[in-house]
Amino acid sequence: MRLSARLLAASALALSLVVAPAAAQDARTIREAEQLRDRALQDNVAYELVSELTTRFGPRLGGSASEQASARWGADTFRQMGFDNVSIEEFPLALWTRGEARAEILSPFPQPLEVVALGGSHATPPEGVEGEAAIFETYQQLLDQPEGALSGKIAVVLQDTVQAQDGRGYGATSPIRGNGPTEAAKRGAVGYVLRSLGTHDHRFAHTGATRVGEGTVPSFAMSPPDADQLRRMIRLSDQPVRMRLFSSAGFTADSHSQNVIGEVRGSGAADEVIVIGGHLDSWDLGTGAIDDGAGVAITAAALKLIEDMPRKPRRTIRVVWWGSEEVSQPPPSQGLAGARFYAASRAGEMATHVAISESDFGAGPIYSLTLPAGAADTDFRRAAQAVLTPLGVLFDGSPATGGGPDTGPTVAAGVPAFRLNQDGTDYFDTHHTADDVLDRIDPENLDQNVAAWASFLWLLANSDVDFRALRPASSAN
Amino acid sequence: MRLSARLLAASALALSLVVAPAAAQDARTIREAEQLRDRALQDNVAYELVSELTTRFGPRLGGSASEQASARWGADTFRQMGFDNVSIEEFPLALWTRGEARAEILSPFPQPLEVVALGGSHATPPEGVEGEAAIFETYQQLLDQPEGALSGKIAVVLQDTVQAQDGRGYGATSPIRGNGPTEAAKRGAVGYVLRSLGTHDHRFAHTGATRVGEGTVPSFAMSPPDADQLRRMIRLSDQPVRMRLFSSAGFTADSHSQNVIGEVRGSGAADEVIVIGGHLDSWDLGTGAIDDGAGVAITAAALKLIEDMPRKPRRTIRVVWWGSEEVSQPPPSQGLAGARFYAASRAGEMATHVAISESDFGAGPIYSLTLPAGAADTDFRRAAQAVLTPLGVLFDGSPATGGGPDTGPTVAAGVPAFRLNQDGTDYFDTHHTADDVLDRIDPENLDQNVAAWASFLWLLANSDVDFRALRPASSAN
Ligand SMILES: [Zn+2]
Ligand SMILES: [Zn+2]
Repeated sequence: MRLSARLLAASALALSLVVAPAAAQDARTIREAEQLRDRALQDNVAYELVSELTTRFGPRLGGSASEQASARWGADTFRQMGFDNVSIEEFPLALWTRGEARAEILSPFPQPLEVVALGGSHATPPEGVEGEAAIFETYQQLLDQPEGALSGKIAVVLQDTVQAQDGRGYGATSPIRGNGPTEAAKRGAVGYVLRSLGTHDHRFAHTGATRVGEGTVPSFAMSPPDADQLRRMIRLSDQPVRMRLFSSAGFTADSHSQNVIGEVRGSGAADEVIVIGGHLDSWDLGTGAIDDGAGVAITAAALKLIEDMPRKPRRTIRVVWWGSEEVSQPPPSQGLAGARFYAASRAGEMATHVAISESDFGAGPIYSLTLPAGAADTDFRRAAQAVLTPLGVLFDGSPATGGGPDTGPTVAAGVPAFRLNQDGTDYFDTHHTADDVLDRIDPENLDQNVAAWASFLWLLANSDVDFRALRPASSAN
Repeated sequence: MRLSARLLAASALALSLVVAPAAAQDARTIREAEQLRDRALQDNVAYELVSELTTRFGPRLGGSASEQASARWGADTFRQMGFDNVSIEEFPLALWTRGEARAEILSPFPQPLEVVALGGSHATPPEGVEGEAAIFETYQQLLDQPEGALSGKIAVVLQDTVQAQDGRGYGATSPIRGNGPTEAAKRGAVGYVLRSLGTHDHRFAHTGATRVGEGTVPSFAMSPPDADQLRRMIRLSDQPVRMRLFSSAGFTADSHSQNVIGEVRGSGAADEVIVIGGHLDSWDLGTGAIDDGAGVAITAAALKLIEDMPRKPRRTIRVVWWGSEEVSQPPPSQGLAGARFYAASRAGEMATHVAISESDFGAGPIYSLTLPAGAADTDFRRAAQAVLTPLGVLFDGSPATGGGPDTGPTVAAGVPAFRLNQDGTDYFDTHHTADDVLDRIDPENLDQNVAAWASFLWLLANSDVDFRALRPASSAN
């Protein structure tokens, strides 16, 4: 437990650091936050939760029987943890089913490729689609093609995703997956294959949502080594590359998904609600351990530690396990189904939401805190920094630009977001692959996350900091 | 190039070490061996060979059109390299086809498992087989079951494979794959699933040969994380685990495989033949880069360096790219089809074979040399050690127990074997998985292999060392 050792070594320093903010904020609350932090590092509730979730339910595709069963278990678990107002809120959802996907090189060097269908993509005809590959090193090269240039061809984009602590490499390439099939279809393509948005060189293909509906083509991600293989083929031969694609993916049933909600009701300012959580659904290839079993477990475990405190927090803390974050829906619907339903069905309650944040970036350690614009120069921020610094969490002065995918619709309704930023350097090695299983989670890193969340939430729930009031006139958050 | 630096630093030492053996062996030969060694470290022929092989032909299952095409390319390559007596020798082979394989947990926690069919295994009925799982932590526990104890059940063995530099962990568990299905069938089982013989915790299932024919059951390997998942299921629930298995694997056609052979003819003792090589076939999940594209490339590249020498070696060196090492055959045939054909069709020539060895343990660096029993106290051994030591290759005094899988039938006919032992610590992370692709090969390690093979072969081919004559009366090698 290197982290614990580091924490103990830093304690004396931390104690001296908090003297100033303690005077202004509330010395007892800060002490309690530190106790929560230290207790979380000895705790294993989060690991047990994500272990049980992934073992009992395996993959939890939005709208599947497995996601639904995991939600019932989630509500039971919230009740057993002593949370208040536990509920499951259902919403309709079209069920997408992967079926089978295959891709092969027909010439010059016949061989199969390791591929998966993109989430929300549709089937090929039963005999598949066959065509010459139009291969682009970058997505921009595809976008530069005029209309009709890809007529009858299979568009292939080899662009790499760059590894970065904050995931900005994935941010840069995610349009290749989201919009690529539509852009290829516009130019006449009959199929679409991208290099997986992964930051490794192993034989895992990454799924992920793409745009649904008319005006798109059957679409696939190949593993990074298969993209490297295509590059070598082009170097070895002048002949055109011909490929065949097959997929039986599609939307197969009207179903439903659901959000699972629980609270620790506040005492004093119970109508001021802080919302946290993760998404309960996962892609269907792995068991959704890092995406996002980790997030649902971290936030629920943090709230359980708060529930176990001798006194209630001032404000209410609500944990939401959002349903169906991953899979897009046929038009006019869009992605983030649970998060949209959450915000839409509470349009009149947004003013009571004082802050929102999600844990949905894997199971790596938290390295920084971002707060809403205007919050940097507050006693609240100084207290939070003092409590979090011994965990290796630094304050990042740039304002939070959001609180995670599922906070989007709520943030769009004016609710301030904060973020406990996780190190995602390795996240896109695993995210959306068959390898997203419990073995990828380091229990010690999970404890550090819970420690940061529990102690930060305790400070925020016992504070009267008003992020809306602090907001500069020019800022959206 | 850390290795090159290390080599240069060691050169002065190496030169002084060889003084004594040089007097007895042949100073010029030793100098030439050192030149070959140093040239190999600057060379990239082996990497180019394995890159082209795996790119052009992808998976090369024994008896497949891809294996056959790769053999034609191999013979052309040997000719372009200037090798003598290049030939392809064909032999009949039944073609095994993987088809599709699926496994799922039906209860208590329904979910799919990541599995592959074992090589040579047969299909389930079209509706699959369904049954209660009889789950064993160790293979011995299965063997301890009486006849009929597994009646109607699916036998599952969770035993881990231990990581080891010399692969002894795999040696210990390989009967679980080879014999397990037959042993399960004897006890009444209707299906068989083992934890992959892999030394990692990623979601790759490992295939590999199992016994073929009557008295066995459809058999599968699951990925290591799926075995961990089953362990957790048993801890979480007292209910029996029920599973369904499906496979469409089987032998589908009469085909042929082949050995590809080339030589550098000796000058002076041309009828004394040293045989080296690797196997050209691979499993069908990956592209057979480390198993055994690396071995075929290393040995051919080493021979090419010798071919390029200003003078011929004394003895003949023959490189064989064996066909169909991997996939077992229906009775009465067995595995190692190409190696058996090689030895059987040369029964009268075995006396001319002075030594044999294969490179078939991945692409890791060589760390030791083992020679036939009785060869330790020879000037030849001292010269070899002096030339190899700067590469980090030490002499291992224990006699070589074989020269690699494909040398087996030839060694059984009395031919002495030597071995350049590779570090296989990571070999079983990748071996027989979809992840066995070019990305797994470190070019620098490949160069070190070529350096060791080329320099050792030069010494052996210019020596008159007679391993048979050195053999102690009690030794088989
Ligand atoms: Zn997610
Ligand atoms: Zn092999």
